Amino acid sequence: MDKIRIGIVGYGNLGKGVEMAIAQNPDMELVAVFTRRAPESVEAGCKVDHMDNLADYKGKVDVMLLCGGSATDLPEQGPALAKMFHTVDSFDTHAKIPGYFSEVDKAASDNGNLSLISTGWDPGLFSWNRVLMESILPEGKDYTFWGKGVSQGHSDAIRRINGVKDGKQYTVPVESALEQVRAGLNPEFTTREKHLRICYVVAEEGADLGRIEEEIKTMPNYFADYDTEVHFISEDTMKAEHAGIPHGGFVIRTGKTGVETKQKIEFNLELGSNPEFTASVLVCCGRAVHRLARQGKTGAITVFDIPVGLLSPKSPEELRKNYL
Amino acid sequence: MDKIRIGIVGYGNLGKGVEMAIAQNPDMELVAVFTRRAPESVEAGCKVDHMDNLADYKGKVDVMLLCGGSATDLPEQGPALAKMFHTVDSFDTHAKIPGYFSEVDKAASDNGNLSLISTGWDPGLFSWNRVLMESILPEGKDYTFWGKGVSQGHSDAIRRINGVKDGKQYTVPVESALEQVRAGLNPEFTTREKHLRICYVVAEEGADLGRIEEEIKTMPNYFADYDTEVHFISEDTMKAEHAGIPHGGFVIRTGKTGVETKQKIEFNLELGSNPEFTASVLVCCGRAVHRLARQGKTGAITVFDIPVGLLSPKSPEELRKNYL
Repeated sequence: MDKIRIGIVGYGNLGKGVEMAIAQNPDMELVAVFTRRAPESVEAGCKVDHMDNLADYKGKVDVMLLCGGSATDLPEQGPALAKMFHTVDSFDTHAKIPGYFSEVDKAASDNGNLSLISTGWDPGLFSWNRVLMESILPEGKDYTFWGKGVSQGHSDAIRRINGVKDGKQYTVPVESALEQVRAGLNPEFTTREKHLRICYVVAEEGADLGRIEEEIKTMPNYFADYDTEVHFISEDTMKAEHAGIPHGGFVIRTGKTGVETKQKIEFNLELGSNPEFTASVLVCCGRAVHRLARQGKTGAITVFDIPVGLLSPKSPEELRKNYL
Repeated sequence: MDKIRIGIVGYGNLGKGVEMAIAQNPDMELVAVFTRRAPESVEAGCKVDHMDNLADYKGKVDVMLLCGGSATDLPEQGPALAKMFHTVDSFDTHAKIPGYFSEVDKAASDNGNLSLISTGWDPGLFSWNRVLMESILPEGKDYTFWGKGVSQGHSDAIRRINGVKDGKQYTVPVESALEQVRAGLNPEFTTREKHLRICYVVAEEGADLGRIEEEIKTMPNYFADYDTEVHFISEDTMKAEHAGIPHGGFVIRTGKTGVETKQKIEFNLELGSNPEFTASVLVCCGRAVHRLARQGKTGAITVFDIPVGLLSPKSPEELRKNYL
């Protein structure tokens, strides 16, 4: 069997995760990593080429996995690369998804390509489960909790404060809120009641810790609406105990069938590394895109359009025999 | 919009659950319930007709939901009805699925129909999750636990014992086993270590309770390989406390990405009524079958072939905008 030829565009945490995930999937091979940096400055376990040379790989890569960020990389790269390749990306700016979908859809359709946008775990697996759960239990209510995990955006916000050398923020679901949801009580929560924000901060020498704590806790949008804990720690402790990028979360729907019969569906993740897990989702989605493209499908799609069997390297016969 | 016209074949607990589920889905209408009994003896909230008249409904029903049992009903009805209608069933004799698939596939294909077999929650949602989880985390191990819930087969086995008037058996996952799995320890379990069997028995007056308990606990295949508890209760207690048909379970996969990074995915259900929930799954699957059939798909399919978006009454645009 011919292997599925994969290219990685962007070689940060996500791109590195994709490289490692491909090594776990013997039906795939990694053709090259594409970077904006000088290729010779990038150490990877495969060929590294400059993004300027992407067009040279038409016909040599089956699916490009776009590993750039949603703020500035993907809005440009998504539509541009959908003109040349089948693509998969993790575009996650929720409010901009419909517009992004349209742009990528046009680029991909016009050029006979297929592009899966906004995959990963949220958007991605969580979205998939929200649709699944509501379809089964139309009379009900679902809840999404995130964490315990590192929020990159909130960590960045802390690091921008004067006197802060390093900072890391964990989003933590409130356990009692989770329990109320699981009990089917259909609670209404304020923002504060669903998640805590726990911050670890390394301060510059002589910095005013009280002022830093106050600035964090009152920061609008990021922290002001939450119960926020601030812990000052040493640089060594930061390195020793907060080097990872764990994350996770819960999608829970409770609903009723028949005459007031309670039903609950829950999907949850506990991730040692957010980018490595997201990368693993992107990789198996790459397999599905390859297969759907071979069936002649073109344009933009989302996880809602993918039959789960296409994610697996196993044959339909084997899946029916051993997984049903 | 034209409503999707549904027929129910078989009016036991599952068929009744389907009737109630359709009432929660305004894009569907129930055309009739088909029974082997005298139609006038069956009380339903819709038209009741005899199964002998099914052929009269060709062109009047979009999707038939087959609500018979896997032991004797579906092996006959599945292929026979796939010749006349698009169908959905919950065939759950795992070992016989490939053969059943082939038969239904031939009947449906030859007649331009589409048949979804073996849906529900296991097989069904659990199967779907096993494939999803393994596709994302190829290096890992997954576990399925069932319960706490009523096993119909085991309850029947108890009731066949001499001196037993009524009996109900709950399958209960062993909490410590679940915890080991969640911790990513990749444990190997004996049958006994994964599930307990708890039996509630109403004995005939004067029956030898010791002998009944012994017969239950040593019954091969059903109980001998498990830690089994037997509780004798009164008929009133049975009615008051054990009238429901709850069930549920867990699919958990732990795996590793990158260099030994732990990842965990979990899907679980807590069901007040097993047949009502299974019915709700069948109903949204009926919607997907209707849509796929309109796209021209024929033959037999499983949950592995269904894009999740097709289960929802909402449009692709709305799903992308509000659920991604």
